[in-house]
Amino acid sequence: MSDVTTTDLYEVTMALSYLREDMRAPATFSLFVRDLPRGRGFLVAAGLEPALDFLADYRVEREDVEEFAAALHRPVRDLEPLLGLAFEGEVRAVPEGHTVFADEPLLEVTAPLPQAQLVETYLLNQVCHQTAVASKAARCVLAAEGKPVVDFSLRRTHGPWAGHQAARLGALVGFAGTSNVAAATALGIPASGTMAHSYVEAFPGEEEAFRAFARTHPGPVTFLVDTYDTEEGVRTAARVLSELRRGPGCAIRLDSGDLEALARRARAVLDAAGLADVRIVASGGLDEYGVARLVRAGAPIDVYAVGTRVGVAADAPYLDAAYKLVEYDGRPVMKLSSAKVTAPGRKQVFRRTGRPDVIALCGEEPPDSARPLLRTVMRGGRRTGPPDHWQDARERFREDMAGLPEPARRIHDPDPVRPVRSRALAELTARVRAGIEARLDPEHAGPAPSCGPALAERT
Amino acid sequence: MSDVTTTDLYEVTMALSYLREDMRAPATFSLFVRDLPRGRGFLVAAGLEPALDFLADYRVEREDVEEFAAALHRPVRDLEPLLGLAFEGEVRAVPEGHTVFADEPLLEVTAPLPQAQLVETYLLNQVCHQTAVASKAARCVLAAEGKPVVDFSLRRTHGPWAGHQAARLGALVGFAGTSNVAAATALGIPASGTMAHSYVEAFPGEEEAFRAFARTHPGPVTFLVDTYDTEEGVRTAARVLSELRRGPGCAIRLDSGDLEALARRARAVLDAAGLADVRIVASGGLDEYGVARLVRAGAPIDVYAVGTRVGVAADAPYLDAAYKLVEYDGRPVMKLSSAKVTAPGRKQVFRRTGRPDVIALCGEEPPDSARPLLRTVMRGGRRTGPPDHWQDARERFREDMAGLPEPARRIHDPDPVRPVRSRALAELTARVRAGIEARLDPEHAGPAPSCGPALAERT
Repeated sequence: MSDVTTTDLYEVTMALSYLREDMRAPATFSLFVRDLPRGRGFLVAAGLEPALDFLADYRVEREDVEEFAAALHRPVRDLEPLLGLAFEGEVRAVPEGHTVFADEPLLEVTAPLPQAQLVETYLLNQVCHQTAVASKAARCVLAAEGKPVVDFSLRRTHGPWAGHQAARLGALVGFAGTSNVAAATALGIPASGTMAHSYVEAFPGEEEAFRAFARTHPGPVTFLVDTYDTEEGVRTAARVLSELRRGPGCAIRLDSGDLEALARRARAVLDAAGLADVRIVASGGLDEYGVARLVRAGAPIDVYAVGTRVGVAADAPYLDAAYKLVEYDGRPVMKLSSAKVTAPGRKQVFRRTGRPDVIALCGEEPPDSARPLLRTVMRGGRRTGPPDHWQDARERFREDMAGLPEPARRIHDPDPVRPVRSRALAELTARVRAGIEARLDPEHAGPAPSCGPALAERT
Repeated sequence: MSDVTTTDLYEVTMALSYLREDMRAPATFSLFVRDLPRGRGFLVAAGLEPALDFLADYRVEREDVEEFAAALHRPVRDLEPLLGLAFEGEVRAVPEGHTVFADEPLLEVTAPLPQAQLVETYLLNQVCHQTAVASKAARCVLAAEGKPVVDFSLRRTHGPWAGHQAARLGALVGFAGTSNVAAATALGIPASGTMAHSYVEAFPGEEEAFRAFARTHPGPVTFLVDTYDTEEGVRTAARVLSELRRGPGCAIRLDSGDLEALARRARAVLDAAGLADVRIVASGGLDEYGVARLVRAGAPIDVYAVGTRVGVAADAPYLDAAYKLVEYDGRPVMKLSSAKVTAPGRKQVFRRTGRPDVIALCGEEPPDSARPLLRTVMRGGRRTGPPDHWQDARERFREDMAGLPEPARRIHDPDPVRPVRSRALAELTARVRAGIEARLDPEHAGPAPSCGPALAERT
């Protein structure tokens, strides 16, 4: 199993046919999200860095050819035209951390048609999943209004690899740490976590458990206080911390029940015990909705640990993303069937201050004071610069958040930014559509359809 | 990054403390799902095989110790008690493919406490994710009522690894194939898929595209007919297939629009062209609900391709699973806080014909004609037999499906089987609870609470 054969079979059947038909002209595919899921006012571009690693290393080896042949029940020699094929194309993409919206290309691949086709499945896999999770995590950071958020998702992500990405994507949008040791070390971010209920249960009682833990860990400790009776647990934790003079840097963790009420009572107990510097960590089924409720209620919670629901982006675990051919051999192309119309041509997205983004054709002049979002990140199959660091992505995310309209930032019922299309893109779309319709039904083709409101510049 | 450090930090802090306190007595942890998600009448046990691979290989190496030390900001020597720690315990588990229900242990680990604790995160990660996806896939097979279902999910799963598992889990519950080449070869199942819309768009027209594809692929071909106008696409496909005399084994694929209506019209066109043996494949956002609707409506669809929504188990992408300490050093333990009460003691699940499962204590005599579900699959850290093959799991799944009550099989609003607890388990639960309550509040402890209906045998 290689990254090359981790692909949908149809990429192989198509690529083989393109090679046989000598269709090696440059093709541009655009990867974009058609609609934002309910509950998302924005997406955070992610997955580009692993995608570029994949493209840089892409090369069809003999074992891959043999796997392809086996899958197609054909002799290996039939698949040999694919042997040695590498990715030698160009990638223009939105760097990780930027906000993106419906129909905006996250990346555009331009390469000889067989190459550009073969990499589709893997690119979609990386970008869809990671953008979905980063977008969910970003909303948790917004909901926490400056309080630290940490990632506890590893036990529920879709495999260890997805767990690693969840930690990385959390860091990218501003999480303060992760429970995942391997991810924390790889990323250079704080690892977080101290004890489970089972730890407390393994001792005769809570107090014995807390004392034993403090013996092992001379630095700051966090005591989990809700194994039996939460208020009693807080009192026990306070007593042990006071006796051991271990206040600063220490914390208690609440993992169940009415977190708001329990946090208030815990705060009162800790303060009364002179432990004002002992922090309260809350966890247990939290996502942006739970965090927002607690923050709005003024619950005295110092750290929010989010896990399951964020690591799998539970309310929107996938995105309606597509990788569509938009140009082949200099000819703009589009798909027309049913509701899934795609806009033709290579594109650029212009970000403007205080106004919606403009989706334009690549090469158009930017509107006044607009910044292009897509950059050329790969040329001739090689990165144009060093790999991006997640901290750079975090910086982009911070900047984009500052400019994001309030309706898109909202936790409940957000209203996403709706990009507009440039006149040139609208006109090209209408022209290509008319050409297809004339070919499909030459007798009844009318004049080129007007570009309705969805296609015209609406600002 | 190793599988050993792909863990929540708290497993490490706890294990270190257990070693320091010389708490190495055998502990049993039980991995179970507290509640089935809405829309699930049953779960399909999965993830055990990768979990056993992990346990068999588990060994804390020097680099792992160094990572642990870095994560804890402690000198490496402080973590050295963990060096060389391997998993030497016993695992009793429900083999993959069996149906399971709320509160039934999917696996129980018995090992020296530090070992049993350290493996928690990884085991949960494997079993939760895979059981969630297998359960979703299983419902698609039920909905298809005998029609083949194939997996097209790779582009939307949470990473390539999750994509591989989605293909494996599909095979396990009876899918006929997968689009994922690497998974198909690894599993020895058919690879499926032929062309995308981009293929059609790369040619001047549909007919040229279909003819070129047939030139490259002399065997059976599937033409995607909905790039522009679906009915026109079907007519073009029929014309090309007829001219090339390529009917048997060939198919057309519908990927958008009103699949029922389009399938009926496509069937009529194909039949009229003498292509009764050309099959119709449907895809595009399908899951068990979409498949069930089409099957009930009698749509002439021969193969259902399910992708995104199944590969990520979109409506229930995680399970409320727990890995709870139930016994330590011969002493049954339980957690009491808020709603998350766990039952103490090592357990067994007995499956009965025509009656709900019984969750009992390990060692209890089975009720009449009941079969125990948990088997000892690992002893002394080694598998008790060769790895299970997914085909064995498929056989178990088939058998369990045959015995599953109709309300649990239903696609819409299924009613899960609710296992009952044996009298011995109910009594132990009451006794342990009373002991904890007496310790928490010695003055007001009443008599042991009766075991309410949730705990008593209700059949």
